[in-house]
Amino acid sequence: MTRVLVLNGPNLGRLGAREPEVYGSASHDDLVAAVAGWAAELGLAAEVRRTDSESELVGWLHEAVDTRCDVVLNPAAFTHYSYALRDAAAQVTAAGLRLVEVHISNPYARETFRHVSVIGPIASGTVAGFGFDSYRLALSALSPPSSRSV
Amino acid sequence: MTRVLVLNGPNLGRLGAREPEVYGSASHDDLVAAVAGWAAELGLAAEVRRTDSESELVGWLHEAVDTRCDVVLNPAAFTHYSYALRDAAAQVTAAGLRLVEVHISNPYARETFRHVSVIGPIASGTVAGFGFDSYRLALSALSPPSSRSV
Amino acid sequence: MTRVLVLNGPNLGRLGAREPEVYGSASHDDLVAAVAGWAAELGLAAEVRRTDSESELVGWLHEAVDTRCDVVLNPAAFTHYSYALRDAAAQVTAAGLRLVEVHISNPYARETFRHVSVIGPIASGTVAGFGFDSYRLALSALSPPSSRSV
Amino acid sequence: MTRVLVLNGPNLGRLGAREPEVYGSASHDDLVAAVAGWAAELGLAAEVRRTDSESELVGWLHEAVDTRCDVVLNPAAFTHYSYALRDAAAQVTAAGLRLVEVHISNPYARETFRHVSVIGPIASGTVAGFGFDSYRLALSALSPPSSRSV
Amino acid sequence: MTRVLVLNGPNLGRLGAREPEVYGSASHDDLVAAVAGWAAELGLAAEVRRTDSESELVGWLHEAVDTRCDVVLNPAAFTHYSYALRDAAAQVTAAGLRLVEVHISNPYARETFRHVSVIGPIASGTVAGFGFDSYRLALSALSPPSSRSV
Amino acid sequence: MTRVLVLNGPNLGRLGAREPEVYGSASHDDLVAAVAGWAAELGLAAEVRRTDSESELVGWLHEAVDTRCDVVLNPAAFTHYSYALRDAAAQVTAAGLRLVEVHISNPYARETFRHVSVIGPIASGTVAGFGFDSYRLALSALSPPSSRSV
Amino acid sequence: MTRVLVLNGPNLGRLGAREPEVYGSASHDDLVAAVAGWAAELGLAAEVRRTDSESELVGWLHEAVDTRCDVVLNPAAFTHYSYALRDAAAQVTAAGLRLVEVHISNPYARETFRHVSVIGPIASGTVAGFGFDSYRLALSALSPPSSRSV
Amino acid sequence: MTRVLVLNGPNLGRLGAREPEVYGSASHDDLVAAVAGWAAELGLAAEVRRTDSESELVGWLHEAVDTRCDVVLNPAAFTHYSYALRDAAAQVTAAGLRLVEVHISNPYARETFRHVSVIGPIASGTVAGFGFDSYRLALSALSPPSSRSV
Amino acid sequence: MTRVLVLNGPNLGRLGAREPEVYGSASHDDLVAAVAGWAAELGLAAEVRRTDSESELVGWLHEAVDTRCDVVLNPAAFTHYSYALRDAAAQVTAAGLRLVEVHISNPYARETFRHVSVIGPIASGTVAGFGFDSYRLALSALSPPSSRSV
Amino acid sequence: MTRVLVLNGPNLGRLGAREPEVYGSASHDDLVAAVAGWAAELGLAAEVRRTDSESELVGWLHEAVDTRCDVVLNPAAFTHYSYALRDAAAQVTAAGLRLVEVHISNPYARETFRHVSVIGPIASGTVAGFGFDSYRLALSALSPPSSRSV
Amino acid sequence: MTRVLVLNGPNLGRLGAREPEVYGSASHDDLVAAVAGWAAELGLAAEVRRTDSESELVGWLHEAVDTRCDVVLNPAAFTHYSYALRDAAAQVTAAGLRLVEVHISNPYARETFRHVSVIGPIASGTVAGFGFDSYRLALSALSPPSSRSV
Amino acid sequence: MTRVLVLNGPNLGRLGAREPEVYGSASHDDLVAAVAGWAAELGLAAEVRRTDSESELVGWLHEAVDTRCDVVLNPAAFTHYSYALRDAAAQVTAAGLRLVEVHISNPYARETFRHVSVIGPIASGTVAGFGFDSYRLALSALSPPSSRSV
Repeated sequence: MTRVLVLNGPNLGRLGAREPEVYGSASHDDLVAAVAGWAAELGLAAEVRRTDSESELVGWLHEAVDTRCDVVLNPAAFTHYSYALRDAAAQVTAAGLRLVEVHISNPYARETFRHVSVIGPIASGTVAGFGFDSYRLALSALSPPSSRSV
Repeated sequence: MTRVLVLNGPNLGRLGAREPEVYGSASHDDLVAAVAGWAAELGLAAEVRRTDSESELVGWLHEAVDTRCDVVLNPAAFTHYSYALRDAAAQVTAAGLRLVEVHISNPYARETFRHVSVIGPIASGTVAGFGFDSYRLALSALSPPSSRSV
Repeated sequence: MTRVLVLNGPNLGRLGAREPEVYGSASHDDLVAAVAGWAAELGLAAEVRRTDSESELVGWLHEAVDTRCDVVLNPAAFTHYSYALRDAAAQVTAAGLRLVEVHISNPYARETFRHVSVIGPIASGTVAGFGFDSYRLALSALSPPSSRSV
Repeated sequence: MTRVLVLNGPNLGRLGAREPEVYGSASHDDLVAAVAGWAAELGLAAEVRRTDSESELVGWLHEAVDTRCDVVLNPAAFTHYSYALRDAAAQVTAAGLRLVEVHISNPYARETFRHVSVIGPIASGTVAGFGFDSYRLALSALSPPSSRSV
Repeated sequence: MTRVLVLNGPNLGRLGAREPEVYGSASHDDLVAAVAGWAAELGLAAEVRRTDSESELVGWLHEAVDTRCDVVLNPAAFTHYSYALRDAAAQVTAAGLRLVEVHISNPYARETFRHVSVIGPIASGTVAGFGFDSYRLALSALSPPSSRSV
Repeated sequence: MTRVLVLNGPNLGRLGAREPEVYGSASHDDLVAAVAGWAAELGLAAEVRRTDSESELVGWLHEAVDTRCDVVLNPAAFTHYSYALRDAAAQVTAAGLRLVEVHISNPYARETFRHVSVIGPIASGTVAGFGFDSYRLALSALSPPSSRSV
Repeated sequence: MTRVLVLNGPNLGRLGAREPEVYGSASHDDLVAAVAGWAAELGLAAEVRRTDSESELVGWLHEAVDTRCDVVLNPAAFTHYSYALRDAAAQVTAAGLRLVEVHISNPYARETFRHVSVIGPIASGTVAGFGFDSYRLALSALSPPSSRSV
Repeated sequence: MTRVLVLNGPNLGRLGAREPEVYGSASHDDLVAAVAGWAAELGLAAEVRRTDSESELVGWLHEAVDTRCDVVLNPAAFTHYSYALRDAAAQVTAAGLRLVEVHISNPYARETFRHVSVIGPIASGTVAGFGFDSYRLALSALSPPSSRSV
Repeated sequence: MTRVLVLNGPNLGRLGAREPEVYGSASHDDLVAAVAGWAAELGLAAEVRRTDSESELVGWLHEAVDTRCDVVLNPAAFTHYSYALRDAAAQVTAAGLRLVEVHISNPYARETFRHVSVIGPIASGTVAGFGFDSYRLALSALSPPSSRSV
Repeated sequence: MTRVLVLNGPNLGRLGAREPEVYGSASHDDLVAAVAGWAAELGLAAEVRRTDSESELVGWLHEAVDTRCDVVLNPAAFTHYSYALRDAAAQVTAAGLRLVEVHISNPYARETFRHVSVIGPIASGTVAGFGFDSYRLALSALSPPSSRSV
Repeated sequence: MTRVLVLNGPNLGRLGAREPEVYGSASHDDLVAAVAGWAAELGLAAEVRRTDSESELVGWLHEAVDTRCDVVLNPAAFTHYSYALRDAAAQVTAAGLRLVEVHISNPYARETFRHVSVIGPIASGTVAGFGFDSYRLALSALSPPSSRSV
Repeated sequence: MTRVLVLNGPNLGRLGAREPEVYGSASHDDLVAAVAGWAAELGLAAEVRRTDSESELVGWLHEAVDTRCDVVLNPAAFTHYSYALRDAAAQVTAAGLRLVEVHISNPYARETFRHVSVIGPIASGTVAGFGFDSYRLALSALSPPSSRSV
């Protein structure tokens, strides 16, 4: 079964508590559960991890390359400045794996500094603005066509 | 059955012929067929239209508001400068309908002028970089949860 | 009787439906009627036209030059990028006719991209921010002093 | 009778002498007389004041708030940098009164520094480019509909 | 005989009437005649078309690709912002055909906004500033060496 | 017979050796020969000079003014920063002579710094992107109509 | 007893009336009283002055130098453009006296133009965002350690 | 007793050793002691923490939200780029708690990159430039009025 | 005898006290005396005035126009932002009189904001960097050739 | 024997696996070995450390100050944004020690964001673009002249 | 007798022929004569040199340092980009000699690129806009007070 | 024996005299001697040349290509603007030879204009900030491994 690492960056552990009008009222645990359900149906073995640490995220991306699994990455605020993360993420796609950048909210509809992604240029694709559903769509993009109905 | 307008902007009629290394070798007719298949499974009545004309796109967005249907919009090159299109698209979301901006390629991985979207700030969400699959994901985002397996 | 072309650009046909808190709840037909009334009192033969098409607007400006009539132009979103419209509008003023740029809302009080007008440098004058009244003032500016009370 | 303060900023006392090809050959006294005539017809009690002093203009705007009268403001060169004037003018509109920014010439057709207005974002509306007639139009915008013919 | 499409963008139908000090006093018909004469001598079958419509220009460029003919393109004001046109023009050169960007006047000697060409980066070459002669030179560049004296 | 100075700037002596995929494999001597042939047919007395020195180019432009001959100038890298060259070239056109800026490659399709020409604003016209043929077209632009077939 | 000049710039006389949601509902007289109370407890002789005039503020800063007293300066809108004020304020700190820049609101949380302070680089320190309490803190910073409890 | 977290970012452990002409010669331990003394007098329970790690700071801010205590934050170099820290700090103020940004030196009087704060827009207030005294003032701002003399 | 107004802007009354390493230790009175001496020798009737007020400077420039005398203007900090002063100064040169901008120090060798002069474009000439001698040179430039030795 | 800390930043542990066309095929272990060999010959005691963590790098730089040893620093992606690292590195050079910034590749020949170094201004020197040899040269720069042949 | 080198940069040999409406109709020889006359009266031994070559100018500035004489430098177009010239000129002032930058015209009143001087920051002073008289004033600034009347 | 051209740009002949606090007190002759010594030990035949002339430097780079020898280039002030030099230097590396850009000082620690190198993007590598030692390191980088101890 295809393995996918779902990696969440800084402040995403605060889901449910932080700006619920932007991020919704469901918690990170709810997100983990939802991803588990979606992955099961899509024939994916998805593992969700979360950290506020840039270096931990970088290490997980290295692990993705070494274990050859695709990645769903929500870089959160790192989106806008972490070239260290970009260099790590670039190794995923350079290795022929796929990396999908996801965002719960629509960064373009928020402050100007959120309009720039240093990750975007090396991602395989982007899904943004659909709430938790952004993760479902990202997983669907990575799923084997044979495992999904659509 | 939920109606969705799938609107394709300038030069998308050239799919299959234009830069196949970027856009793939399938034609716009192939895209229409794929969308039809996905929509059927997702319980959506999707209508695909295509034009090189800014004003025709604007008119179709007005129609979406008046007939109250969601929109999947690939603005193509208009993404980067057509504030007329933005003003029209903004009416869709202001009316409580959803508008998903899609791109076949990943604009961030191309020329700098493609990094800016004047549509993004008023879209409900964005899907980019998955080839034709960007449309499947956009439709999935708009589908009623009851109609889809995941 | 002096003839004036009143030309409305993209999305102005949506008046009344679009963002009523910005543009008011009166429709484009209401605007046409109001203009007719004002023009009659000001001794002007005003004809109101509306289009979402850049090329149609360009053509009407050519017609204004050829038939030698003044113009009230609400370029709407074209204000911010259509150099084609500017080149056409520039012919009006270069021919010794007058062209008044009007806006229903105050563009300076809205998004940053609306602060720049590519039409402004070649307009005779600008009236912005008075709702439909912007058209009344523009017509008054073009009216023969003898026909108006003030 | 509705009271309107008509406030003219720096160098406007030089009308008639300064760049007549831009500002015309009529003097500030001529302007005062014209405003008086227009106001009378429009049912307005207009008072014209003129100063080269930023702080005096600021004080007059405070007075407008306190005496609750609308304002026609030609900020002249202060248009481009006086945030002190902006902060004062913002109090007028915040108090539910109206403030119309006027310009005799069309600033967009002149030097680049004149293309930016720090007053614009807090004005009710703008009239520019019609010579002294800009004042007539501004007064008309502020006049009670019952007092005017159009 | 080699076929060449000569495509003229917005406001070029106004030649002779518009800013004669910049564009000369000859009309678009005069240009058509001149092109015909030059083409005949150069062994080219040149067809001149003219439109104010962006989408029509886009369509003609698609036709050039499909019928495999070279293009002389005067994008006029579209030069400065129409990425839709650029995407269409890029298909011409990507198909191994040639596309020459021409300008009657020298855009660098005019307003700043005319100094930027979004078409330039994908054109085969550029000829600007020679009046109608710009077209003669462009045609000469596209002519078979055997058909021309120089 | 009309005299034309053909002036080539820095590194153009390296033609044939330098980046042949950009500049072709023909040498500067080949260019001199080609120019000679074209000039002969066009009824021009063309003299080709080449230098890596900014001041030598400046001096040759002074000579062009003093001997009243037109100029074909390939400023090479000086295009992007040499205001000394611009000031010299401006004297040519100010004297009623013609100066054509030529480029072998298309600067717009290369690095960003090559997109700016400090010479452009004072040139009579520009020809770029046609290989050595850029010189042929420039000479043709300067040739007396009577001497050329087209 | 240490003397401190507390200088308030343009529009601060409007406290209580102007944007109470930003500046609170207390008046400038209330501020004067509060400062008097705080100063008394802190062993300072504080004098509060207020003006809308740039030159008056400049003069008071000269006086501070000549009478050798520290300054609490709320430059209000002058913060963003008055280099005259900066040059005057720089003399205070150059003379070995202290000048504290205070703001009632947090300029960083407001319009972009308020994010830049031309006074900041020459101030001893800054206190912003605490309402009238900004003045209390500034006075405390200037108070002799022996006179204060903390 | 009101609890306050005093959080110090990268390189602040080097106080006393690092650039004493900018930061003074007292050490971080001295700062801890000073804060303890000030807090005691102000009726605050202040806890000082220090880290070079962005993720640890982020976690502490989460803790502040969860334990509902105010924050004094010296983000040090993170001030200028850490949007992760900003997103965490924004949760503090969004939760109705207060967060004061402090700086020992005056960032405006140093290198240009220090003039921009990504934290500022979401802070309650800012105190900068008073040496360790910046902390005393920040604590005073957070203290209950009843506990302080001034 | 030719009359010259020598006008000094904000903070120049502080000469001798302010930054003596930049401006020297002589006072404004010393400057007045020096100017008197130089003017006498140069056959000029020079009157030196000084103010911190923008509007007073503006008024003196109006007086220069009305009494038709040349001007030596040291705009001090107003150099960098006062478009009101520029508009006033422009009237001097537009009236065929001369206005020389002087600076005691060399603004280019100081902070970046001092590198921009909004007065420069409308001045007759500029003298900067020579200490009080800048005034001597400016007066010499305005003196009748017959009155001076060199 | 002189001690040198050789500190490698994020993603450098991936040497050999990551973009071998840019970084070569040798691993970080190979680099450690090479450095050991070079150091031995140059009379240096070099210790190589590697981390993806910004705070760990910061701590090592503090250690360098405290143990007074020179530093060879490859900040990798932190080069472009980590002001925390810069502040730590600045302490090394401020303490009279040397810090050499090294890069394996030539950052100027890669993406634009790599052209800016926030570390550069406080480094003793820079060596970039020589592959692993960059480290050899950096060590050589730090070696005692007596220990090296050249 | 004090020696002064008067150095003129590119295109200044064209005086009298080039843009006489900007530079006047007198030739470089006339300038040499005028300088000779002024120098004689001012007790200076002035030598005027002229070149279009950047390196020759650089060499002359080296000579000025070695022979310890002051310099009057008209860098002409080099003003705007020649950092080589700046580095040479900086040696003059660093050696305790004086270097006056002169311009015949007022660069601020011309094209935007002429508003920036890379020489200005290292010059002793600047004189611009007085025609040839700029040289007289510069010489006067360098003359021994004892030799001049004023 | 491998040949290396060591090329020094403008003002480097002034070593020892110019800003000794930046460049040291050793002269260019000292540098030549040092390079000779280092080269001998490293098995290189190094020839040092020096010029203030851009075109001479360009010519020497052409010679390097033709005689196939590596280059150590100190472009001095040309670093920041000479695209002519860049085009010449690019031929060296395009020919498979190596070109090392060296700087005696650390340009990043000086004025902003020195932070940009137009040569960098086409150099093989860069060494900066080590005084004359920068040349030793550059030579070492170019030396055959067999000839050097480290």
